[in-house]
Amino acid sequence: MQSQTIQKLIDLFSKFPTIGPKTAARFVYYLIGLKKEEVQEITGTIAELKKNIKTCAYCFKPFEATGHLCEICGNPGRDKSMLCVVEKEPDLNSIEKTKKYRGRYFILGGTISRLRKTEIEKLRIKDLVLRVKRGQDTKEIILAINPTAEGESTTLYLERLLKPFGKKITRLGRGLPIGGELEYADEETLTSALEGRK
Amino acid sequence: MQSQTIQKLIDLFSKFPTIGPKTAARFVYYLIGLKKEEVQEITGTIAELKKNIKTCAYCFKPFEATGHLCEICGNPGRDKSMLCVVEKEPDLNSIEKTKKYRGRYFILGGTISRLRKTEIEKLRIKDLVLRVKRGQDTKEIILAINPTAEGESTTLYLERLLKPFGKKITRLGRGLPIGGELEYADEETLTSALEGRK
Amino acid sequence: MQSQTIQKLIDLFSKFPTIGPKTAARFVYYLIGLKKEEVQEITGTIAELKKNIKTCAYCFKPFEATGHLCEICGNPGRDKSMLCVVEKEPDLNSIEKTKKYRGRYFILGGTISRLRKTEIEKLRIKDLVLRVKRGQDTKEIILAINPTAEGESTTLYLERLLKPFGKKITRLGRGLPIGGELEYADEETLTSALEGRK
Amino acid sequence: MQSQTIQKLIDLFSKFPTIGPKTAARFVYYLIGLKKEEVQEITGTIAELKKNIKTCAYCFKPFEATGHLCEICGNPGRDKSMLCVVEKEPDLNSIEKTKKYRGRYFILGGTISRLRKTEIEKLRIKDLVLRVKRGQDTKEIILAINPTAEGESTTLYLERLLKPFGKKITRLGRGLPIGGELEYADEETLTSALEGRK
Repeated sequence: MQSQTIQKLIDLFSKFPTIGPKTAARFVYYLIGLKKEEVQEITGTIAELKKNIKTCAYCFKPFEATGHLCEICGNPGRDKSMLCVVEKEPDLNSIEKTKKYRGRYFILGGTISRLRKTEIEKLRIKDLVLRVKRGQDTKEIILAINPTAEGESTTLYLERLLKPFGKKITRLGRGLPIGGELEYADEETLTSALEGRK
Repeated sequence: MQSQTIQKLIDLFSKFPTIGPKTAARFVYYLIGLKKEEVQEITGTIAELKKNIKTCAYCFKPFEATGHLCEICGNPGRDKSMLCVVEKEPDLNSIEKTKKYRGRYFILGGTISRLRKTEIEKLRIKDLVLRVKRGQDTKEIILAINPTAEGESTTLYLERLLKPFGKKITRLGRGLPIGGELEYADEETLTSALEGRK
Repeated sequence: MQSQTIQKLIDLFSKFPTIGPKTAARFVYYLIGLKKEEVQEITGTIAELKKNIKTCAYCFKPFEATGHLCEICGNPGRDKSMLCVVEKEPDLNSIEKTKKYRGRYFILGGTISRLRKTEIEKLRIKDLVLRVKRGQDTKEIILAINPTAEGESTTLYLERLLKPFGKKITRLGRGLPIGGELEYADEETLTSALEGRK
Repeated sequence: MQSQTIQKLIDLFSKFPTIGPKTAARFVYYLIGLKKEEVQEITGTIAELKKNIKTCAYCFKPFEATGHLCEICGNPGRDKSMLCVVEKEPDLNSIEKTKKYRGRYFILGGTISRLRKTEIEKLRIKDLVLRVKRGQDTKEIILAINPTAEGESTTLYLERLLKPFGKKITRLGRGLPIGGELEYADEETLTSALEGRK
């Protein structure tokens, strides 16, 4: 018989993304093996996270600062003519790391797997439409959604939805990624790679 | 630029077993997405874990109860003539699940990869020797250590160490596991399977 | 447009076990790159295989020699009191490699996935029954079938079928294989490992 | 003891690309199980391959027809102003499948892992230079080499080598492939995807 607290914590860790009960159990034994102060540092930082982290009023990025805009949206140096729509924050971070994009972002909060009304309503699509409607400076909207099946239908849905506002709407370029191989590339990727040669 | 609290928590989660920075980041975004009370449940349970969980004075199993013996060692119904030495608690749990073992356990705390003195001292080998020395009821010691390279050298080391106490010392039976295939079995496993046929 | 001969050979190689069209194509390009004599060595050896290889009249092992018994069945030094039933030749080879078995074999030719009459008839079950019936020297029949789901039902079926002949019928011992881990072992394997400790 | 012919054939199949001795053995048992005519079809087709397949005098593609040019190079409808350099034939086939390229090809025969003279000489680089020198119709050379580390240094090497001939030299476009994810994309791929947006 497992201890009640251990079992409860295994259950809670099992809800973490990608974690099953076996790994959750390993987390618990890891915590049991830590010193008191080390555990307090973890719980303290989690508590702080909830206290300190706000969601940006414009792009929905979690941030930690005064004001209601994140460090990107609140930065007057960013280019307001460009709006990059991403699925989730790690995607935003990936784009930031390239240092090639100086515009603003909007975090959609997910993709639409099937075009169900309930799913669409969970995403921040109404907020996005509002940003585009009021964004007189915005000239280009980059739909930087993953080119997966779900991502594609989301991109298509957004293109149709945002078309009436008269902005330039673009998608990320397709092609062979670093390390990719022609032999195993699909036809669509290879067609894009050929058309986009330079 | 990542928020400071987010980065700190990513660093802390990256130390969890099997977790790299990418998954650690997903944990943080998962926590950000949770309700305040849900996060409090997690931090509360972790804090409770550290407060409630004691280590059994006999077998070193973490447990949650009054007294200083875990629910197995403190159970008068368990067979004191048998002592099963395991590497870590999940191994003990696996054996308990079979419901075929009614003796007591001893959790070694690891295996010896190379027979270095410092490594040996980190394990609870002195405590094990003490249990065996004083355990007049103990008749059989099962060395239920994983049959991996490290586990084998640990088993060998323990066999030599415990031999002088005159108890019966056994190892788990080798053979084909459920789902195993003769074609891919190593010779030692197959030899054991042949010898142990019935 | 692929050459006709290339396409035909890709199709033929795609029927080889575990091979898909991509690897089949790599085989063809590999052959194209070989010297004429190297290719002739391959086709020659395949042709020889068909010419030289006979199937043992007792155990159904493919072999290459005069007579109608393979090198095991024809070896007077092998122990005729033991008969080891395996699914396929690689399993027989695995057991031979252990050098711990000196009896004879019988290659069943597969396992029964569902107990369908047509499937059972494809196996050499009638031949096996004949061997057992006439095998007055045979004292023990080892059913060395893989402990997979299909293998188990085949073993069960054979046990029932061969029971009336009054021989000792055994199975390979279960347990932890070399490299196995208690934490991830199933309960049945672990129970066998506990019961088979020594 | 394995039969000699079986062992020889296992050794020959073990030299096939991606094949180890276990799979090679499965190939042999597969062939043993085939009917005589089925085996003859395989050996016959392999023999035909060696007899029928020629290497195109222009692009080095293996082909099966009269004349000394393959069905692409011999096709007057193909655009002679474009020359696409690929590493190996499967890459050429991938590009053909897109139906977006109407020019000619040149199969290099590999990539240069380190810029060693002996390695460079094994490739058909001299032939390529000759094609470019004499190819007065050629206006663009597409270096369709895999964007792997080895492929990149080969591309770089070819760019420098072919520059003096005054043709337009291009590479395949980089970007996210179908099914790719921003979160796991490298910075260079993502930069290309951003720059190539449309």
